[in-house]
Amino acid sequence: MIRFCPQCGFPTSERVPDDDNRLRAVCENGHITYENPKIVAGCLATWEDGRILLARRAIEPRHGKWTLPAGFMENGESVPEGAAREAMEEANAKVEIIDLYTTYSIPHISQVYMMFRAKLLDPDVSAGTESLEVKLATEDEIPWNELAFTMVRLTLRHFIEDRKTGVFVPRFGDIRPPER
Amino acid sequence: MIRFCPQCGFPTSERVPDDDNRLRAVCENGHITYENPKIVAGCLATWEDGRILLARRAIEPRHGKWTLPAGFMENGESVPEGAAREAMEEANAKVEIIDLYTTYSIPHISQVYMMFRAKLLDPDVSAGTESLEVKLATEDEIPWNELAFTMVRLTLRHFIEDRKTGVFVPRFGDIRPPER
Repeated sequence: MIRFCPQCGFPTSERVPDDDNRLRAVCENGHITYENPKIVAGCLATWEDGRILLARRAIEPRHGKWTLPAGFMENGESVPEGAAREAMEEANAKVEIIDLYTTYSIPHISQVYMMFRAKLLDPDVSAGTESLEVKLATEDEIPWNELAFTMVRLTLRHFIEDRKTGVFVPRFGDIRPPER
Repeated sequence: MIRFCPQCGFPTSERVPDDDNRLRAVCENGHITYENPKIVAGCLATWEDGRILLARRAIEPRHGKWTLPAGFMENGESVPEGAAREAMEEANAKVEIIDLYTTYSIPHISQVYMMFRAKLLDPDVSAGTESLEVKLATEDEIPWNELAFTMVRLTLRHFIEDRKTGVFVPRFGDIRPPER
């Protein structure tokens, strides 16, 4: 929530700038602060035997639920670099990114998930500070009722479906309330 | 550039918060302000006869150069909604989004371009306030030496290549300095 101008520290108010059509935080000096959606970059990484890397969240939201490693993309990196970094931070997992697999917009929280397929380069994985535990799961071991986010369920479902044919079709879509 | 805290207006300084590993803008009250990459959503829209919608930029950067309609995604919308909105704002073009076609990270400016294929629903297009002119271009009419951005050139090139076979393969990649 923007209440003060990040450039000059003066209070802001919400108004539509002259050449714009949306409410923005504008300060008394006329500086405009824009807010935009954030990218969450992540991956579905598999070991040579087909097992899938999952991590159990040690943080909110969805503490205790299982997820694919993913997190906010940082300035100065590419999306696949962000996805690989998150795998390392959350699961001490060294991965090689294959391709962009699923992209989900979640407009009501202004986030865009971008999930890559990835190859796990070493099966020796372990929980990072944001995870309670990690595991390499066979399809039968996926905790479908204990997944953290809709995008995790959709990405896993598409992957398992596509793996039967060997043709991985990139997906994009929206996730709307009450889901997340 | 963040010099004051958007939450409380106190001055910020750059430091690494306790549970973090990156420099952030942190104020005297301990509020952390995160900065993240922005998504630029756009589309490659074609009319029934195969002509491609192009717009000539009336704004910097690359004033006067030709682009595919694209702009910063806004909070509260999905990526394809943002792409369609930009086509309307820049070219008064009503489009139907088909699929996500190219995704390019540009780490040195912390932007991610997401370009969709789209169907133009009405050939009656015209310049919006951010465009000098718009046109529906055949392949021979594409101004290759007057394109605004690398992502425009790459997206057009892939599209023209894929159109020969009718199989449109989603692409992702990075654009590094000195390109943009």
